Amino acid sequence: MTKGKQLYEGKAKKVYATETPDECIVSYKDDATAFNGLKKGTIRGKGTINNRLTNYLMERLESEAGIPTHLIRELSDTDTLVRKVDIVPLEVIVRNVVAGSLAKRVGKEEGTPLARPILEFCYKDDGLGDPMVNDYHILAMGWADEKTLETIKDYAFRIDDYLIAFFKEIGIDLIDFKLEFGITSDGRLVLADEISPDTCRFWDSVTKEKLDKDRFRRDLGDVEGAYKEVLERVFGERR
Amino acid sequence: MTKGKQLYEGKAKKVYATETPDECIVSYKDDATAFNGLKKGTIRGKGTINNRLTNYLMERLESEAGIPTHLIRELSDTDTLVRKVDIVPLEVIVRNVVAGSLAKRVGKEEGTPLARPILEFCYKDDGLGDPMVNDYHILAMGWADEKTLETIKDYAFRIDDYLIAFFKEIGIDLIDFKLEFGITSDGRLVLADEISPDTCRFWDSVTKEKLDKDRFRRDLGDVEGAYKEVLERVFGERR
Repeated sequence: MTKGKQLYEGKAKKVYATETPDECIVSYKDDATAFNGLKKGTIRGKGTINNRLTNYLMERLESEAGIPTHLIRELSDTDTLVRKVDIVPLEVIVRNVVAGSLAKRVGKEEGTPLARPILEFCYKDDGLGDPMVNDYHILAMGWADEKTLETIKDYAFRIDDYLIAFFKEIGIDLIDFKLEFGITSDGRLVLADEISPDTCRFWDSVTKEKLDKDRFRRDLGDVEGAYKEVLERVFGERR
Repeated sequence: MTKGKQLYEGKAKKVYATETPDECIVSYKDDATAFNGLKKGTIRGKGTINNRLTNYLMERLESEAGIPTHLIRELSDTDTLVRKVDIVPLEVIVRNVVAGSLAKRVGKEEGTPLARPILEFCYKDDGLGDPMVNDYHILAMGWADEKTLETIKDYAFRIDDYLIAFFKEIGIDLIDFKLEFGITSDGRLVLADEISPDTCRFWDSVTKEKLDKDRFRRDLGDVEGAYKEVLERVFGERR
């Protein structure tokens, strides 16, 4: 399986064509951005860590929680073969504890536990700043149909349940995370994108130390150490 | 029925106690504000117009669309006796055509018709700028319970259906509007607040001229004339 034409370059990943029209290669970069691209940097080793974490978690979600994903197989430290999908243009955010934009939106302190998980949708559009939208916006604008939307919600909460328990066992609180979904050429909805410290908020269960991209966003130092810590806890303690 | 202690002063209305604990008097002011109070002004005659329009529309909604409201009876040009309610802290916005904040949020031009109506909730909190929230926020924060939320949605869409048809007959397109609901002392959910050019976007069906508070927000001139025009069409042509 060799990389063909570059199809897309995002902030943290490149996507390449392969010989097979329905498959492509995702290549994770060390580049980091925040605040809609306003802050830029590099997190050494991030590409490898996020590639390995994402693939491991997607495998577990497939086999243990019945969530279909785009994953086919890991090709190298930074490259993975995946099913080609049309991305549903929505960021699907699940929150268990108040943090980040939710703290500002509802005026609650970061760290406030939520009585029940909150799901948010943002419309993926950098020019608009990925605005928060609701079901009615999504349906009226045709960004997803009703069945897709309901399935996304069902998957998102099941993923939350699975990941909360998974990370709890390795001493990490899953505060919130962002998912993206795509539709394969044969019309199946699958989990796509990544699950990593770039897209999740992970707090050490005891010290509440941040083990995620907030260390980069907020200049908290030792960003690489935090990403590595998550990788080691996932692989070191569980494999 | 005489005004007792002032219970509350809002941007466009005052509320007074009466001799009856479950009833209060709403008194409409000519004061106008926009952009969360940053812009202030007076629209001569607005209090009277909004009082009369609101009461007329609430009566129709009660009798013809089966929507319970807080209305008891009109007392004077600016004053109305209503059931005392605990306001559900949500602005309930229904949109039929893209305008205002929705145009910015989704990057569509004002005037773009929507394939289906959009309902939005904003959490009523001036300090937070009345942020948009969704069902999950509302339930997790306890701003309304599930049954109340479902009933609000049902009422909001029924009110939309009724008002679209009502205004169409008098040559007005109902672009969008904001509702508030309250809970009476005996636990009934009722429509509260007002229905007026302060809270609705009304466009002339033919000329698309704005007949609402956007004339004030955007300095379009003849604000009083626009409010009067709506009053005259509602009463002049229909009574």
